[in-house]
Amino acid sequence: MVDILHRIGVTASPDDVYAALTTVDGLAGWWTEDTTGDGQVGGVLRFRFVPGGFDMRVRELVPAKLVRWEVADGPEEWIGTTVEFELSQEDGFTIVMFRHEGWREPVAFMSHCSTKWATFLMSLKRLVETGKGEPAPHDVQISNWH
Amino acid sequence: MVDILHRIGVTASPDDVYAALTTVDGLAGWWTEDTTGDGQVGGVLRFRFVPGGFDMRVRELVPAKLVRWEVADGPEEWIGTTVEFELSQEDGFTIVMFRHEGWREPVAFMSHCSTKWATFLMSLKRLVETGKGEPAPHDVQISNWH
Repeated sequence: MVDILHRIGVTASPDDVYAALTTVDGLAGWWTEDTTGDGQVGGVLRFRFVPGGFDMRVRELVPAKLVRWEVADGPEEWIGTTVEFELSQEDGFTIVMFRHEGWREPVAFMSHCSTKWATFLMSLKRLVETGKGEPAPHDVQISNWH
Repeated sequence: MVDILHRIGVTASPDDVYAALTTVDGLAGWWTEDTTGDGQVGGVLRFRFVPGGFDMRVRELVPAKLVRWEVADGPEEWIGTTVEFELSQEDGFTIVMFRHEGWREPVAFMSHCSTKWATFLMSLKRLVETGKGEPAPHDVQISNWH
């Protein structure tokens, strides 16, 4: 098993970051505008992009602390993996520890997703700090795989 | 052992990307302006940032294909790890497969470096595509750790 790991710090409150990770409006503001579904525990959030998308079952929520999803549908490599955002406070920043865990193999698509997650986390940072993120379809193109 | 993996694709030739990874001028254009040293096999490249820096011994070079460094000096967590850039061509893009391998533990600093490498790889992409990257000290701040 191999994991994608990232860490960012944002000058917004844990409550604001948590809202951006648990509400359809928040998620549509930094990951993909085409976000629908239910962000409560047991609910399924549907994220769609031009080439396809992901269905995430919300597995765990601790307000202002933790959001954990399990991938219910999407690319074969993603099925069964988990995506976690752990929030804490340090030096006046809200720290987001991001983990996309449980990849079976370090395939090229995983490397792509690692870079892509970093750019989307920077979009989350911009959303909570400035009110405007860069969700798909306005996301940064990083390669031929978009 | 855990690894940081990224993948980007750039609309510049493998030769141009290789030059940006092997010459002091190229490296200073996307990673840190304070780059000195010798980019040939066996040479040491010195990269300095406000908080410190890294000395990389160049271990392997295959023109337009591969650059591999071993960390000779820097933060304790980096010592002995290797940094590799593997170049190929696909769909008219030069693909850069990036690997920072051999971390002993998935510490928070590794997560930070993973996100930071992604932003520097996007700086490399901008440099070779537009002529202007975002090397330190003009790099994107991602958190309280810079």
